[in-house]
Amino acid sequence: MKKPLILITNDDGIDSKGIRFLVSVMKNFGEVVVVAPDSPQSGMGHAITVGDKLRLVKSDLFGSIDSYKCSGTPADCVKIAKHHLLKDRNIDLITSGINHGSNSSISVLYSGTMSAAIEGAIENTPSIGFSLCDYDPNASLSHTEPYISKIINNTLNNGLPNSIALNVNFPSKSNNKIKGIKVCKQANAYWEEIFDKRLDPYGREYYWMVGNFVNHDKTRDNDELAISENFVSIVPCKFDLTSKTGIEYLKSNWDI
Amino acid sequence: MKKPLILITNDDGIDSKGIRFLVSVMKNFGEVVVVAPDSPQSGMGHAITVGDKLRLVKSDLFGSIDSYKCSGTPADCVKIAKHHLLKDRNIDLITSGINHGSNSSISVLYSGTMSAAIEGAIENTPSIGFSLCDYDPNASLSHTEPYISKIINNTLNNGLPNSIALNVNFPSKSNNKIKGIKVCKQANAYWEEIFDKRLDPYGREYYWMVGNFVNHDKTRDNDELAISENFVSIVPCKFDLTSKTGIEYLKSNWDI
Repeated sequence: MKKPLILITNDDGIDSKGIRFLVSVMKNFGEVVVVAPDSPQSGMGHAITVGDKLRLVKSDLFGSIDSYKCSGTPADCVKIAKHHLLKDRNIDLITSGINHGSNSSISVLYSGTMSAAIEGAIENTPSIGFSLCDYDPNASLSHTEPYISKIINNTLNNGLPNSIALNVNFPSKSNNKIKGIKVCKQANAYWEEIFDKRLDPYGREYYWMVGNFVNHDKTRDNDELAISENFVSIVPCKFDLTSKTGIEYLKSNWDI
Repeated sequence: MKKPLILITNDDGIDSKGIRFLVSVMKNFGEVVVVAPDSPQSGMGHAITVGDKLRLVKSDLFGSIDSYKCSGTPADCVKIAKHHLLKDRNIDLITSGINHGSNSSISVLYSGTMSAAIEGAIENTPSIGFSLCDYDPNASLSHTEPYISKIINNTLNNGLPNSIALNVNFPSKSNNKIKGIKVCKQANAYWEEIFDKRLDPYGREYYWMVGNFVNHDKTRDNDELAISENFVSIVPCKFDLTSKTGIEYLKSNWDI
């Protein structure tokens, strides 16, 4: 069997520990090409570079593995890999991460890591975003390896439905053993912000945005709960935002 | 009845024609507060400002209407309005736009205009993004006024379901009369990019990303078709990306 061609990207930047660890695991599964942002892109959501140039520069960070740093967003990295760098080849799998910090629940919308995966799904390439629920850039990652391998083996052998990207979140390393993998739905939660107002040395106001996570999901099958119970969570994500409930509501209640 | 409090934002920046037109229409419906980006933020998707400061500066662009320019993204504008500027009040409605350019179909994911609306929906405020299918920053907007008014009247009188944001797209002005409003689903389409490689004056490569829109939706009820037939399209959007099909697939086919 031909070795799968695997594109790896992230949002923390090409030099982060998370992507280096992911490359070290993924190279066991196929031919890896890295195209990752040249600077941190956390919180970039599904941003793309519109009306500005992009740079794409060869990197030697990964030794013999073909790798490039891109001046754009995670979604840009997927686009330039797919439609320029690797345009004459078929990418079998896109993996993004490992993100330093949780992308569970509503954070999937703000996450550059997951937007790269969703960009892959839009173009019908099996795509997975991996995140560790620990914001420390030096956090321990080795406990994720057997779960990444299990997920990749399943993806390569048992497939993913079309147009679906997986949002995988790992509990941070602790003394408690991980209980397994749970397929979940996105928890119904949000970030409630506090704006910490300060004065700069020139007397002008500025703000730091500080988020407090508010989870009001009481169901049993949501990703927040799974992670809190020390499971690895997988939420299969789609990019069609259409609300059928919304369509029915407008058709029944609106006068248009 | 108390006048509704209406927050207006956009992604083209506070000085764009689209937001000025939207303010001129919306001030007939309630008390308007403007919080919009101080620079163009097209293609920002659901980006938020993480790990950097935000500025919020009073603007006099809208005369007696309270208005502020923010250094952040459209989603940041909604957050700082909701959790800082207007934190002691209840925002009844958020409108975003009018965007100069289509946000139909898959563009909803890349759109700063729609991310502001979805950010509103996450926090359970009725929210609507308006976009004109014309990228000219001086495009004519007057033909949208009766449809905006109809949509706002319906929203205020007949409501929106919780956690739903509306994605409204207007055909560009032409000699053909608009046929009405259609409630639609998000068309199944994507952007296929070409990367136009150039050399800068220093001999270094850079790229312009140029998108070609590829619509492979053959259904009758999608937004692209509605707009092409000269209807105003409304797609009700949700922020829960969970794919039930994906959950069932993994539970049936994966070995975890």
